[in-house]
Amino acid sequence: MSSARNTQVLLDSRPQGWPVEANFRIVEAEIPEPGEGEMLVRVHYLSLDPYMRGRMNAGKSYAASVELGEVMIGGAVGEVIHSKNPAFREGELVVGTFGWQEYAISRGAGVMKVDPARVPLQAYLGAVGMPGVTAYIGLLDIGAPKAGETVVVSAASGAVGSIVGQLAKMRGCRAVGIAGGAAKCALVTQELGFDACVDYKAGKLVEDLRAAAPAGIDVYFENVGGEVLDAVLAQLNPFARIPLCGLVSQYNLTQPYGIKNFASLLVNRVHLEGFIVSERLGRWPEALRDLATWVAEGKLRYRESVAEGIRSAPRAFLGMLRGENVGKQLVKLV
Amino acid sequence: MSSARNTQVLLDSRPQGWPVEANFRIVEAEIPEPGEGEMLVRVHYLSLDPYMRGRMNAGKSYAASVELGEVMIGGAVGEVIHSKNPAFREGELVVGTFGWQEYAISRGAGVMKVDPARVPLQAYLGAVGMPGVTAYIGLLDIGAPKAGETVVVSAASGAVGSIVGQLAKMRGCRAVGIAGGAAKCALVTQELGFDACVDYKAGKLVEDLRAAAPAGIDVYFENVGGEVLDAVLAQLNPFARIPLCGLVSQYNLTQPYGIKNFASLLVNRVHLEGFIVSERLGRWPEALRDLATWVAEGKLRYRESVAEGIRSAPRAFLGMLRGENVGKQLVKLV
Repeated sequence: MSSARNTQVLLDSRPQGWPVEANFRIVEAEIPEPGEGEMLVRVHYLSLDPYMRGRMNAGKSYAASVELGEVMIGGAVGEVIHSKNPAFREGELVVGTFGWQEYAISRGAGVMKVDPARVPLQAYLGAVGMPGVTAYIGLLDIGAPKAGETVVVSAASGAVGSIVGQLAKMRGCRAVGIAGGAAKCALVTQELGFDACVDYKAGKLVEDLRAAAPAGIDVYFENVGGEVLDAVLAQLNPFARIPLCGLVSQYNLTQPYGIKNFASLLVNRVHLEGFIVSERLGRWPEALRDLATWVAEGKLRYRESVAEGIRSAPRAFLGMLRGENVGKQLVKLV
Repeated sequence: MSSARNTQVLLDSRPQGWPVEANFRIVEAEIPEPGEGEMLVRVHYLSLDPYMRGRMNAGKSYAASVELGEVMIGGAVGEVIHSKNPAFREGELVVGTFGWQEYAISRGAGVMKVDPARVPLQAYLGAVGMPGVTAYIGLLDIGAPKAGETVVVSAASGAVGSIVGQLAKMRGCRAVGIAGGAAKCALVTQELGFDACVDYKAGKLVEDLRAAAPAGIDVYFENVGGEVLDAVLAQLNPFARIPLCGLVSQYNLTQPYGIKNFASLLVNRVHLEGFIVSERLGRWPEALRDLATWVAEGKLRYRESVAEGIRSAPRAFLGMLRGENVGKQLVKLV
């Protein structure tokens, strides 16, 4: 380990609109030594997620910004390779917020041990991790779908959306995805088992959505915003629920899209709730237990897009914001 | 009574955008005779409310349209003058959905007896009626304000808004109204006891709202929509609640205003809920009991704008949609 270095991705400048690779800076640092109560983790997989775009801004968001010159924030799985924390032993595999880097120091706060014999290691960043729990809490707790209802989810082939539709099917609902392109829609229906998928790039979103959800929409799990949201609002049923998880179509715009069908929230007596999964920690244990069981039993499927090496993280992140990934976007480091 | 006639206001045509007096037709009909199980009510006061605008449309709304040629729908208080319903006696005063007319036949469904010795008869159409219960349920059940929080309400000098702010004060909150014009704002602060009022017509809504709610907005009771909503969204606190009661600025537009600050609902993890008071009947008895007590004790104040005679109803209704009234808009028939 003496000759190894810790390659890190720092936030170098704040984007105006769409981020570019030049907003990041890649550096090689010394591999740090853990102090008392700390451990050193070698990262195996880094998770890339849309929320990270918000952390690149200086402005108010729901979480603290990454400061310029700091390592980009991010969840990751890895191996404890040196521990001075009695709760963690060398060789243990863990998931935590280790950032965009090859090696991380942690005191163990928010770090969870994981068992790769049950589900693959990287699944703890996806279906059995933050995105899976996001789908679980948003759909089941806020969306509260009842059998026979129609559940629509945007970004349906993504890490969260792909789980939402499958959970909706488990609850006896009609699951309708919205995704960009025929290939993603084929994945959503043929591989993930949704009842229908609307390709929002096909140019007739409103009509296609009406055909896919002929009985109207009871639950809309929102990841996207903008025109897609307007199309869904126009087709809500009375007493619809909207778990508001993300608005990825808006994150890189300098002028936001103006929502025209807001009145549907009144006319249909809609319950809309914005949420962040990290603020509902009490629900994680049950969610993770259920998700792990379903993945292990083959009841819950997922897809991954894997970039190789920490230096590929910025490009993979930008691709994910453009929707180039399918399923969970990962960076494989080891 | 033999020479008397029943003057009625019918819906004659559907408005495109802003309604006009020509959308209504005034007719004189025979005073009907009650059949078995029915009663005849002579209306004393008719209530005019923004929701009636939606009933003039053919399109889907949260309630059935008034058909062309039908009497306009509306709540009213009056006296039972002839009863063949054993539950009601002649001379009793009642509130019910009697419509825009001088005399109405009713079977008693949804009709409630009222006591004018406790509060004035017409208050059962306002502070101790549907608008008061709307304020009570929307603020207390959905808004759930906690002492020390800031509650903002639009259309603050109206029948609902004027109650919302006073209930917020009772709960130990900072109550901020939004209203059109200096006179309404003076009423809201000086007579109704709000802490502050923003005149949205003064041309600096965002700045004035920031000054009136310096600690941000925890509850926004929404009656108006449009630009006012956008200004409020930009100043919400985390975990804000929005009881969505009305969008009166939008009812007469052919192109809706596009809401630009929708992302605030996500960033601040907002709970927004559209509601209709008639769908929450279980809460009415407690709400009416509390409201009547507070009005009788002088703890809850209200204002009325009173038009004279059933033939003035269309003009008074149009004036209310333009915000010309203060407090509860009534039509006095007797």
